[in-house]
Order: sequence, then C-alpha cells, then structure tokens
Amino acid sequence: MSTDRRTLFAGSATIAAALALPAILRPAGAQQAAAPAAPTATNAQAPGFYRFKVGGLTVTTVHDGFVRRPVAGFVRNAPLAEVQAVLASNFMAADTLTVPFTMTFVTTPAGIVAFDAGNATQAGAATNGQAAANMRAAGIDPTRVVAVIFSHFHGDHISGLTSADGQRLFPNAELIVPATEWAWWTEDGNLTRSPEGQRPNFANTKTRFAPYQGRIRQIADGAEAVPGIRAMAAYGHTPGHTMYHIADGGEQMVYLADITNRPELMAPKPEWQIVFDFDGDMAAAVRRRTLDRVATDRMRVTGYHFPFPSNGYFIKDGAGYRFVPADWSSAI
Amino acid sequence: MSTDRRTLFAGSATIAAALALPAILRPAGAQQAAAPAAPTATNAQAPGFYRFKVGGLTVTTVHDGFVRRPVAGFVRNAPLAEVQAVLASNFMAADTLTVPFTMTFVTTPAGIVAFDAGNATQAGAATNGQAAANMRAAGIDPTRVVAVIFSHFHGDHISGLTSADGQRLFPNAELIVPATEWAWWTEDGNLTRSPEGQRPNFANTKTRFAPYQGRIRQIADGAEAVPGIRAMAAYGHTPGHTMYHIADGGEQMVYLADITNRPELMAPKPEWQIVFDFDGDMAAAVRRRTLDRVATDRMRVTGYHFPFPSNGYFIKDGAGYRFVPADWSSAI
Repeated sequence: MSTDRRTLFAGSATIAAALALPAILRPAGAQQAAAPAAPTATNAQAPGFYRFKVGGLTVTTVHDGFVRRPVAGFVRNAPLAEVQAVLASNFMAADTLTVPFTMTFVTTPAGIVAFDAGNATQAGAATNGQAAANMRAAGIDPTRVVAVIFSHFHGDHISGLTSADGQRLFPNAELIVPATEWAWWTEDGNLTRSPEGQRPNFANTKTRFAPYQGRIRQIADGAEAVPGIRAMAAYGHTPGHTMYHIADGGEQMVYLADITNRPELMAPKPEWQIVFDFDGDMAAAVRRRTLDRVATDRMRVTGYHFPFPSNGYFIKDGAGYRFVPADWSSAI
Repeated sequence: MSTDRRTLFAGSATIAAALALPAILRPAGAQQAAAPAAPTATNAQAPGFYRFKVGGLTVTTVHDGFVRRPVAGFVRNAPLAEVQAVLASNFMAADTLTVPFTMTFVTTPAGIVAFDAGNATQAGAATNGQAAANMRAAGIDPTRVVAVIFSHFHGDHISGLTSADGQRLFPNAELIVPATEWAWWTEDGNLTRSPEGQRPNFANTKTRFAPYQGRIRQIADGAEAVPGIRAMAAYGHTPGHTMYHIADGGEQMVYLADITNRPELMAPKPEWQIVFDFDGDMAAAVRRRTLDRVATDRMRVTGYHFPFPSNGYFIKDGAGYRFVPADWSSAI
C-alpha cells in the first residue's frame, strides 16, 4: 500500500514536474486514415424519462425541466443558515435552489393517464417545458392520454394543459380533479380569502381548464380516479391538494405530488413551510403524517419536484425522513 | 384536514364499495375518430447514459447493464443478516444482489477516453453488455475513443476490449494500464500466488490485450494517463487496482473504480470484504481511507458498480459513509 490517508491526493504538482507529459494520443498508423482527426463533440443530455412496473402497470416518469430560484426566502420558518446546512449535506448549492418538475404517467388497461400537466412553454424559463420532447422520446403520444389526474392547481401543474394560443395539449383527455381543489379556485369569492401570492391561480385555472369544458370530472377524497388509482386528500399546500394511491397485482405506489418540494430539503425537516404553501401549518402536518406512513410501510413513491427520475422511498432518519432513490434499472 | 396518520391509507375497500366505479374513460365525440382505440404500448427503457461537466471536460457515464448474484456469500466477513439489514435500509432485495456496470468516458482536448472497457457480450448474462447500444445512444463512436484507461483487470473491466471472435472493439485506442496491475497478471509465476477465484484473470488478460499489442502503455502510481487525469494507487481489490483523479479548470472528480462494489452496501461498512477482493484486508483499509478523503473534501466521484448514473458524493454517516447521488439535470 503506497498511499495513506494524508498523502492520497497530495503531491500531484511535484509528481507532475518530475514526469514527462504522456505522448499525444494518436491511433496507430494502420488505423490512422480511417479514424477521424477530431473527436465527436456530443453534448446532448440523455432524454428525461424512466420506466418501472407497479404490478402489471407500467409507470413512466417524464421530466419537464427545472427552474432556479433564490434559496433565501424559500423556507418561511427557518433561518437561512439552517436551510443551507441541509442543502450542503445533499451537495446542493447554497444560494440557488433548482426546482425540478417530473410528471408521472401510468399505462393502465383503460389507456395512459398523466398526473398533472407540466408547464408547457409558459413558465418563463428556457430550462422548463421539456415534457413534450421527453414524452416523444418515451413514445407517449399526448393524443393518446385518456386522462390527466390533478393534484392541485398551482401553475406548474396545470399550465401544460394548453398551448400559448389556448389549444388543448392533451386533446382527447378527460381531466380528473379533486372536488375540493376545484371548488376553491373556481369560486371568485375565495380570491380575497387566499394569500396574495396564490391569487393568480384563479385566473390561470379559468384559462387552462376552459378549452376542456364538458370533459372535467370532479372526484371526492377516497374516490377512484380510474380503476386502481384512488384520491388521498393531503390538504394544506393548497386547499384541495391531493395525492394518489396506485395499486395493481399486490403492488402499490403513491404519487405524492407536492407533499414536499425537493425532498432532500424538506423530508429532514417536515415542519418547514415554503412560500408556495397555502396553509403552512396544515401542509407541514400532513407532510409529516404522510412521510411517516410511507416510511413505515416502505411504499414506493413519486413526486412532482423529486430528483429525476422521481422514483424512490422514504426512510426515517433522526427526527425527520430521508428520500432514498429506487435502484435505476435497464430492465423494466 | 380530513385524514389523520392512522386512517391515511385505511378504508379503501369500504370506500370502494360505497362508490360507483368511474365511467370508462373515452375521448369526447369530436375527437373520437382521430383518437386511436388502443393506447400505445411503449415498453422501452430510457437509454443508459448521462452527461455532466468537470471544468471544461464533458463526462459521460454509460451503462453496461447488470448481473444478479446471490447475496449469501458475497460479503466474506459479516453475518448474512447484517448484510441484509443494510440492503433493506436501501430498499434493495434481501436474497439477490444486482451488480450494475457503468463506464465513465471523458471528452478531453486529446479525444474521448474511456475508463475500463465493459463486458461486451461475454459475461454470460442477457442483462449486461449494453454499453455498445448506450454508447451509440450517447453519440460515442468507439472508433473515436483514443484511450481506454484501466483500473484493474477483472473480467468485467477488460472483457469488453474484444468481441467474441477476438476483434478490437476500441480499434484506435491506446490502452493505459497501471504498471503494478500489468506486472501481476502477465507473470504466470503469480498464478499460484493468487486466490483460486482470481486465477482465470491470467488467461483472460492474455486474450483481451493480445489484439492491442504495441499500443499498451504502463503508467506508475501518480503518473498522468493523459493530461489532467492522474493514477491513484488503491491496491487491494487487485494487486494493482488504481483510481483516477480528473481535474480541469479548478474542478475535479475521482473515478473510484471498484473502491466499493455497490456503495449502498459497502460504504456504511467499509471493513466488509467481498468475494472479489484479492487482498481483503488491504482493500478494506484503502476503501476506508479513500471514502474518508472524498467525503472530507466533498469530491465528485463515479464508480464502476455505483447506481446509474454513477455520479455523486460520499458523506460521513455514523461509523461509515453514505453515497449521495448528484442532482440529475437536463442541463449539462
């Protein structure tokens, strides 16, 4: 053993000085004519989709990109330094929070259903609105999506329903919405009862759902959206924020939607409340209760702001919880 | 809040009985002719590659698939129940260990270099040997790989050098090998000095390197393989097992090769020794020292058996360490 803990990475500069630089790499003579002179400059990222099974159902998560925002001000009820310490322990930047968006699709016997609708191109950042390209890469044709099932009506979850000129982006889909969420955002009298930052959701709800008139179905807490997929109220983040339990063939998962924003940040501290929470106390209470239950039952979960591919589990860790990504597999 | 911790997932059966099943989903009349009757059955997994930057260098990890093996017998010096407890805390199976393979490529000014060569189609499982397809998806043409840099000569790291009929799969590459590793496996007198399970490596080394005669360069510990990429001895897993430090523009990472097999299993217990370790005590000592250093310095790492995309960090956790995947990003 020629290295020890202290010298493992030391001495590079002096070693470099003592060594001749390696010869420029070149193909051997015989191959030189065939080998191109310059390396391929390939700068594309892998397409953002991932598949796994829940019983006989195929789940496909599809990345819609991300936005960046200041860390300062994101968590309402914790000192910035505490927030930054949690970020650092996850190797995340101290000043800029990357908020990713990932849709969950399930191929059911009745057809493909989507959970939430993405941003389309309307969220003001070049880094998001990637779902259309990633759906294409995944072979998911939006005209074949038979239902879009909604967790709540924040802009990043519903704006992808329509194009900038108001056309339906899921032209053949039924929209399945939590009745409580629908009731809140479609009643103008609630505008002044909503936190100021949430008020634009009233107009956006009108805009996005209007082209789908006649094909919107409200469901109650506990009801099946489609066979095997059941609404689970998780009110707080919005008045009707709803998760979905998906079961088939003895296997199950939960689409947790916005029970956390980034789980790296919020699972360790379920009591933290973020600027997007409509009712912060209620959101924090249902967050802890939900994380406790999915951790206890070791249930597979996806979420809208989880790190791609948004497929994993929660485990208890100290006074909080920790997101554990499921193993990536080339086999579905 | 209509749910509490105890009832969050309860009552589905009774609720289901009380509710009518939802109507069969169908597109509205106007779209019915255009909408195909059956959903698209798309069963392909996303291609297994991922890109990120280290300074001005582009790193691409490329998945080569996986093999499954019994958990029993994998760790030599721990009771099976302890091994299974660590697996369970990572939501990994108790009886079958999935061992993934992921190659690291770096696009340098001198051309594309690969770390280790994959399995090609010779490792006896339909689930591995996927690197060729994933390189193609990533736009990496093996004829343009100017160097393959080796950590060690176990079969899963060198067999991908040649096709089943002995042709070079990286036809224009120089092979850069740790001198200590080369010396061990090319000296027949070492056969009887090697553990029985390691002896097939002598013949395989001959077979895989023979078609590259005249283009093999041995390097010493601490030497640069190519500018900016430096060998770091980590002997133990094999007599010359070597990691590589990659630096550019003030950023750095380490290709850790087999400093751990799956980090979920071995980082929490660096003292565990596995069946593939040539010298288990030495491997465990260098493992702890290396994990301590990359955790202390918060260095980005890739590894050959890390969960895809094999890009992350180690953090101290109790008496051991924990692998923290780097954030997946659609932006490179």
